[in-house]
Amino acid sequence: MTKYKSKKVLITGGLGFIGSNLARALIFHGAEVTLVDSLSPQYGGNIFNVEDIRDSVTVYISDVRDSSAISGFLEGQDYLFNLAGQTSHLDSMMDPQTDLDINANAQLSILEACRRVNPNIKIVFASTRQIYGKPDYLPVNENHPIRPVDVNGINKLAGEWYHILYNNVYGIRSCALRLTNTYGPGMRVKDSRQTFLGIWVRSIIENKPIKIFGDGLQLRDFNYVDDCIQAFLMAGASDIANGKVYNLGSSEVINLKDLAELMLNIETSGKYELIPFPPERKVIDIGDYYSDFNLIKNELGWEPKISLKIGLKKTLEFYKNNHRHYWSD
Amino acid sequence: MTKYKSKKVLITGGLGFIGSNLARALIFHGAEVTLVDSLSPQYGGNIFNVEDIRDSVTVYISDVRDSSAISGFLEGQDYLFNLAGQTSHLDSMMDPQTDLDINANAQLSILEACRRVNPNIKIVFASTRQIYGKPDYLPVNENHPIRPVDVNGINKLAGEWYHILYNNVYGIRSCALRLTNTYGPGMRVKDSRQTFLGIWVRSIIENKPIKIFGDGLQLRDFNYVDDCIQAFLMAGASDIANGKVYNLGSSEVINLKDLAELMLNIETSGKYELIPFPPERKVIDIGDYYSDFNLIKNELGWEPKISLKIGLKKTLEFYKNNHRHYWSD
Repeated sequence: MTKYKSKKVLITGGLGFIGSNLARALIFHGAEVTLVDSLSPQYGGNIFNVEDIRDSVTVYISDVRDSSAISGFLEGQDYLFNLAGQTSHLDSMMDPQTDLDINANAQLSILEACRRVNPNIKIVFASTRQIYGKPDYLPVNENHPIRPVDVNGINKLAGEWYHILYNNVYGIRSCALRLTNTYGPGMRVKDSRQTFLGIWVRSIIENKPIKIFGDGLQLRDFNYVDDCIQAFLMAGASDIANGKVYNLGSSEVINLKDLAELMLNIETSGKYELIPFPPERKVIDIGDYYSDFNLIKNELGWEPKISLKIGLKKTLEFYKNNHRHYWSD
Repeated sequence: MTKYKSKKVLITGGLGFIGSNLARALIFHGAEVTLVDSLSPQYGGNIFNVEDIRDSVTVYISDVRDSSAISGFLEGQDYLFNLAGQTSHLDSMMDPQTDLDINANAQLSILEACRRVNPNIKIVFASTRQIYGKPDYLPVNENHPIRPVDVNGINKLAGEWYHILYNNVYGIRSCALRLTNTYGPGMRVKDSRQTFLGIWVRSIIENKPIKIFGDGLQLRDFNYVDDCIQAFLMAGASDIANGKVYNLGSSEVINLKDLAELMLNIETSGKYELIPFPPERKVIDIGDYYSDFNLIKNELGWEPKISLKIGLKKTLEFYKNNHRHYWSD
């Protein structure tokens, strides 16, 4: 990836799970990296995520909802990896206005700022599989009907479409990746706000049973964070991607019960239990989901490389060593 | 429509084109009607639209963005016809934030207010064909991919989906009608902010040539406002509609050149000219469009009754008599 050498790169949500891992990769490739993060306690930002690269990045503690600050950060950047977002489906139902402000409103402000101060920037936006809702068929490709089942899905979709629109109408090169479940070192594990795998990791380390909602037979696909980062780097570096939306995904599809067993086997201890869906989660549950990621495979050459077994092993190891930076007892 | 007899009905955008015509119909059916309208000069509200029913309706001059005021108006209502919106595609590109505030943000506040103070209300939301973007096939049915070509389309879609989501998750009975070009007495004719037909009517009455962008061969369908109102009344009265999205439309499809000739024939004078698309309009133009409205026809029994010729005649007559209330020289 020589494309990023000596380039100026801004990452919103840069102290979060994916942002911080992306920053690490970009520094490796020779980029000048600036991170913006609100460090709001309910989101994914954690200063420990960049401890090893702290001297190599510029960090601003600022909220994407502060449009004038963001406009200043955007000036002079070559790339924007736009990752700041409210990710909790449940929170989006409890406080829909905040979800709208972050996932739609702030995205529009960012694009308007690009139009004014930096129309030559290239943007990669982190979208989500959540916008498809309950799948009509599997695996879900990008032509699948869009039918969000929660406020988060609607607002993320608006945010995604603003990016594609600004690409098409104003020529501000933008693309979007619809992420599936992403996991790895740096994810939020304090609770399930970012991914249910977070709270599973915490349960395992605390020797508590993993709680699976429903019968545990729901199918899912997962990307280890390094694979996800590779997709961001490839999408940023390619002009084929402009105006496009790509699914990420994995062909290693697994149900939640088997996933729990796989994690417990890595640990050689622990247990899981099946519990009924809490009603507020049941109404926004999407059933089985896994992605067709052939479009990005064919157009950009991306595919996931890291198996669940290896990825989960690395993840559990990381949190065993570092859990005190991710939750307090 | 005995369903509305003695029922309390709130209409947002109630002094606008469709809102005021709907109010007239609801009063006829015995409803107690309250109208909310911002009367902002750039939108469709016009107090003259309700001159003949002024004593039969309650009118509040208030903005849907004022969530606490709207919450108060919603209490005790049986029906909400939620029509307030920013309709100009071009304005949505020039001032995307305002479009977002009205078409998405305010809609979410309205639904949250319903959830808190009036979960038994029935809502019909005015959506738009604009969300489909450039059609892949014609006529466009509700399963057509959604691909908004402007900020307005994205925000209207978010607004529409919040309604369907609140129906599905919270049981707040809601449905949406995706309107095609609607015309008739009461539409904004000062400029083309609401519909291009508005400025055409004004041009005819002022003896100026009608300006058609492009080659004039773009196909469109049109609904006379009385037909459109009938769809709102039927959707409001039917529980089959809950959680559904219906296209309105017409099988009387016509290109813009023929439409101009039809209007000029009614007038027996005037002329039109073809002019190139202004670039800012070209980028958001959708080409040919007409709707498949079989879903609402089959499920609710709606279909348009009034021919273009008769509808346009009534419309031109209305504005010849009343134009001083719609623009000043």
